[in-house]
Amino acid sequence: MTTRTLEHIGFIGFGIMGKPMALNLINAGWPLWGYARRAESLQPLLQAGARACASPREVAEHAEIIFTMVADTPDVEQVILGEAGLIHGLRLGSVVVDMSTISASVTRRIAATLAAGGVDMLDAPVSGGETGAIQGTLSFMVGGTDSAFQRVLPLFQAMGKNIVHIGSNGAGQIAKSCNQILVAQTIAGVAEALLFAQAAGADPAKVRQALLGGFAYSKILEVHGQRMLDHQFQPGFKAGLHQKDMRIVQEIAAELKLPLPGTALASQWINAVVANGQGELDSSALLTVLEQMAGVKIGELQG
Amino acid sequence: MTTRTLEHIGFIGFGIMGKPMALNLINAGWPLWGYARRAESLQPLLQAGARACASPREVAEHAEIIFTMVADTPDVEQVILGEAGLIHGLRLGSVVVDMSTISASVTRRIAATLAAGGVDMLDAPVSGGETGAIQGTLSFMVGGTDSAFQRVLPLFQAMGKNIVHIGSNGAGQIAKSCNQILVAQTIAGVAEALLFAQAAGADPAKVRQALLGGFAYSKILEVHGQRMLDHQFQPGFKAGLHQKDMRIVQEIAAELKLPLPGTALASQWINAVVANGQGELDSSALLTVLEQMAGVKIGELQG
Repeated sequence: MTTRTLEHIGFIGFGIMGKPMALNLINAGWPLWGYARRAESLQPLLQAGARACASPREVAEHAEIIFTMVADTPDVEQVILGEAGLIHGLRLGSVVVDMSTISASVTRRIAATLAAGGVDMLDAPVSGGETGAIQGTLSFMVGGTDSAFQRVLPLFQAMGKNIVHIGSNGAGQIAKSCNQILVAQTIAGVAEALLFAQAAGADPAKVRQALLGGFAYSKILEVHGQRMLDHQFQPGFKAGLHQKDMRIVQEIAAELKLPLPGTALASQWINAVVANGQGELDSSALLTVLEQMAGVKIGELQG
Repeated sequence: MTTRTLEHIGFIGFGIMGKPMALNLINAGWPLWGYARRAESLQPLLQAGARACASPREVAEHAEIIFTMVADTPDVEQVILGEAGLIHGLRLGSVVVDMSTISASVTRRIAATLAAGGVDMLDAPVSGGETGAIQGTLSFMVGGTDSAFQRVLPLFQAMGKNIVHIGSNGAGQIAKSCNQILVAQTIAGVAEALLFAQAAGADPAKVRQALLGGFAYSKILEVHGQRMLDHQFQPGFKAGLHQKDMRIVQEIAAELKLPLPGTALASQWINAVVANGQGELDSSALLTVLEQMAGVKIGELQG
């Protein structure tokens, strides 16, 4: 038994990622106050010991460190700045930690608003998917002050492994954009490579196995490559969310006047996945768009 | 001391890859007969115990398993089928193992020619670069008969770690094409991601560090990402050779009527590297093409 005084924490957003992350915080011993728009999504947390609040404002009144893990930029704005938002209950010296993947410029604006009221904000988007969230092995990319980062670090460590303080507010979101740039293009590259093997009459499963041992190794080849071989596209990470992230990347690139042709191409494949009605599938369903275009399907018997 | 009788082996091609690979075979105890167009490139092998031959034909007369590791398709044709080529000295039951990266269709044609004379051929291109060649940790992607594969396996194991028998003749080359498809696109993806970080004011080194821990992890992000941060483009794997490999990929794709848009784009970047006079640099110099286009340079102080 430790005798340290644990800060009370708040948590908002219990989706595919948020739920296991919140459970890891509870299991590590922190008292957790939760709010969910749909009350039933809070149930498993209450069973694990969390306490329910009626609004984000009420979460802010009870907790000193408040995590948000919601879908998109407007959701974060609503939860933090909206009518019954955190901002109406936050206390001096509290920290808001947004782990959603949203616009870096909006993040900076919210952080400035909170700072004016004596509240620190960290942007701390994650990588590692549902598996990483459950196993507590997520990567955190963090933007904000060093003092806030140090204060929240033990909580990050209860949810993840590779925790990097990138820079000031917004820098975490920029790093996450880089992550999505790379993940999208690597998925597209793996899909083209496996499709090439299939079309050329080499067993894509053996090709994947061989490539895993060399410079072509990537986590995507290992995990999503296997999904592609199995045509098993249960998320994982939904194509609809990946599309949203790529939209953010391209908005920032346009602001910066930065050409990113490979990113643009991969984004179009993800758009096509969603256009095909597969937005709820894992973004590695990108393979099926290439299969359609090529008239070749992984795993088909070769004549 | 073992008392097994080791087959005599032959080796042709002592470049950046071939030299350390041949040394690993010698150090593992095999008697090695070598031929080099430029006699001086054979010197370090002779000092290690290799014996010199005056032509590929003479290598074939002395050895039962003959490795070739040369630059391009015409070089392999010349060494095996040319005037003083292996074919004029090969004995019944010998095996020719071509570890070069060349055309799959030419590989199949050479294999058929050799098979008509009672000689097996394996295509066994590698991945892992100079470091893998020196450390004996290369990946081998092998095409050919199972009996030939089993016979050569102990020799592959002296040079590499992940050794996969993909399928029949040419299948190793197809797998290598898949490898190059993926390596090219991952290099391009890493370059765009780091450039995005730089342009958006986040430290690319910290972004790389964060991304290494999640789904964006790739060997390319680890190794070539660091090269990009350092603008250190000594090969490694030369852009000029990568260009050749991408030409092979695109020739096969055209034969197969297979559209590969991402591969095509990455190939154009590599063409640009060579066009810029950087064909002797590592293919991760692709970053500099994107930097030129974007007017942003990794590592520049940000204003």
